[in-house]
Amino acid sequence: MELPAGFRVSGFHCGLKQNPDVPDISLFVSDRPAVAAGVYTKNVVVAAPVILDRQRTPSGNMRAIIANSGNANACTGRRGMDDAEEMTSLTAAACGVDPGEVLVMSTGIIGEYLPMEKVSRGINEAAKSLDRHPNNYVDAARGLMTTDTVHKLGTRLVEIDKRTVRIVGLAKGAGMIGPKMATLLAVVVTDAPLAPNDAQEMIGDVCDTTFNCVSVDGHTSTNDSMLMLANGASGGELLVVAELDVFRENLRELCTELARDIAGDGEGASHRITVLVRGCASQSDARKIAGTIANSPLVKTAVAGADPNWGRMLSAAGYAGVEFAAESVNLYMNGTLLYKQGAPVAFSDEEVSRMMGQSFDIEIRLELSEGDAEARFWTSDLTAEYVRINADYHT
Amino acid sequence: MELPAGFRVSGFHCGLKQNPDVPDISLFVSDRPAVAAGVYTKNVVVAAPVILDRQRTPSGNMRAIIANSGNANACTGRRGMDDAEEMTSLTAAACGVDPGEVLVMSTGIIGEYLPMEKVSRGINEAAKSLDRHPNNYVDAARGLMTTDTVHKLGTRLVEIDKRTVRIVGLAKGAGMIGPKMATLLAVVVTDAPLAPNDAQEMIGDVCDTTFNCVSVDGHTSTNDSMLMLANGASGGELLVVAELDVFRENLRELCTELARDIAGDGEGASHRITVLVRGCASQSDARKIAGTIANSPLVKTAVAGADPNWGRMLSAAGYAGVEFAAESVNLYMNGTLLYKQGAPVAFSDEEVSRMMGQSFDIEIRLELSEGDAEARFWTSDLTAEYVRINADYHT
Repeated sequence: MELPAGFRVSGFHCGLKQNPDVPDISLFVSDRPAVAAGVYTKNVVVAAPVILDRQRTPSGNMRAIIANSGNANACTGRRGMDDAEEMTSLTAAACGVDPGEVLVMSTGIIGEYLPMEKVSRGINEAAKSLDRHPNNYVDAARGLMTTDTVHKLGTRLVEIDKRTVRIVGLAKGAGMIGPKMATLLAVVVTDAPLAPNDAQEMIGDVCDTTFNCVSVDGHTSTNDSMLMLANGASGGELLVVAELDVFRENLRELCTELARDIAGDGEGASHRITVLVRGCASQSDARKIAGTIANSPLVKTAVAGADPNWGRMLSAAGYAGVEFAAESVNLYMNGTLLYKQGAPVAFSDEEVSRMMGQSFDIEIRLELSEGDAEARFWTSDLTAEYVRINADYHT
Repeated sequence: MELPAGFRVSGFHCGLKQNPDVPDISLFVSDRPAVAAGVYTKNVVVAAPVILDRQRTPSGNMRAIIANSGNANACTGRRGMDDAEEMTSLTAAACGVDPGEVLVMSTGIIGEYLPMEKVSRGINEAAKSLDRHPNNYVDAARGLMTTDTVHKLGTRLVEIDKRTVRIVGLAKGAGMIGPKMATLLAVVVTDAPLAPNDAQEMIGDVCDTTFNCVSVDGHTSTNDSMLMLANGASGGELLVVAELDVFRENLRELCTELARDIAGDGEGASHRITVLVRGCASQSDARKIAGTIANSPLVKTAVAGADPNWGRMLSAAGYAGVEFAAESVNLYMNGTLLYKQGAPVAFSDEEVSRMMGQSFDIEIRLELSEGDAEARFWTSDLTAEYVRINADYHT
């Protein structure tokens, strides 16, 4: 795995999460000023780190991101803001940069104050380990996890004309995942040379078709953030026009991969569901319909039960707030046609159900006849295990 | 229980549902032409009976409603329309009225054709039993049930000046209950003398604050309908102005009761949740916030687990699409203050959790500071039993 030049990355367990084997502090440091861009939750109730990062991005002069899991530092009032700033100061001191050059992310339980003694120790230890293990992306990805069962990490090596740039993406998901802007924590670091505005525009665009198209429970969090650091350490002039497009599509691929990973690791998931809606008048219409199907508990429980209950899928499409000709709809499940031109199709319930039971990935494809636009949405099924995770634990 | 004059009502089991002890056909007949009004699902995908009833209401000249459960006659194309019309013809023949004077409702599985032989026998037997047991409202209410565990039935005796009119309301709920217009089946019969337009306006208004404020899973069905028959058999002139208002508020009370019953009998429910949102700029804002909290799986699982997890409630309010000052929010759970002016309050987690475990009814009260408008929303909690019902059975 070829990594972006000029970054050091680490993770450390300081006791915010109970399991001592999983880091709860993640640290990303650039050895030179980096361009930073951010996309944030659309929730009216936002966590302290989001308030702070919004003020600092986009920027051409950022050096580090400090993140913690196990505590969201959300709904914590003035003291929460002080704690978020303190995290940037501690990071700055430990890494020899300016406090204003640090971004901060938190995820975990809402409404509890951060135990700053632990956090302080965590930041110092994470900084110390940067020199021993400068490329500990795995621990950094694990340091973002809450109810995630696996870490999410991906890389891209991008050839642009005769230049090579490298991207690493890290994300966390699992619960409180709803589709309203960067619904989760994601960090992208790259050594590509990007202008701040290009970086900002690009992650907004990529986010729209990737992280904003994934949902576990439709609940938009107070902490959702996607941050990118681009330090230009690959050398050369700023990427422009066609070069930017190549970079953008590689970033989109990488983020699609991470978004799919999040859906597949949705709390309690026994299936990953891809909803593909085609034939819409606009991409926004297609996304509304796909998102509504993906968020229906009745659709999600049907998939959990390996039940090809297309009536639930079709009726969910019908309340998405988009007009369409119901009599010309086709619906496919993993390629099998279940509903054709507004009427049921004879199919073997048993056969389709067996196929659904055996396949982790379920694709629901809905074809309308309103136009050529399409959209994809990823989600997980709804199982009794989801209820147990969220009813039995205070997360 | 004093019943509306001039109606005969019955229920019969014809085999659409498996349990032979529960009726699946309900019949309501007025002995004279009745005013009829209807409110219907906003889903783009609508069942055949909804298409038919929409064309026939409001009306001053309706005689009967025939309803079945166990099969929704939805997404059944041309054949479904023929079957719905056939139901009105069979009812007309059995009751000695005109086919155009009959409304029809269906609820149950989507996408299967009605077994018309059974339905035909059911309609005839239900009509025959009208003479022996003309007031069988309980069987008619049970005849609407699908996954409901109890039938929903209420009555009102309304004194208007020196006149007395009577109302009976019946409803079914339990699953595929989402807040976009009459999200369920409800039938209201009254002997009050009402003009068609008054009746239509009134049930639209009442529905907005009652049946449209209840949600089990946020999934708006293809068959949602509320129908009212008002046959004027109480005698006297049409109700006007202040008299109408008295009738309207009694109807609202009755429908509130039925809406609460539906939430309390939500699939798998172990708690009924009332979300009360106060201090909004408009009732529509209040309803949006209340509905968003009520539809969050994270809120619903927290209540199932008796967990006073106010962070989930507050963050749900934040993504309702309504702007508000997050720093002046108060949040109460069954009267206990958990969050005050944008910061956590010290409270005994154990005590509140014990109280939540013991009480079937949970009230979440959110106070904002944007204005004086308020709204209430009712829902059920989300339990592993909900998942079992919807994953293990093809409904």
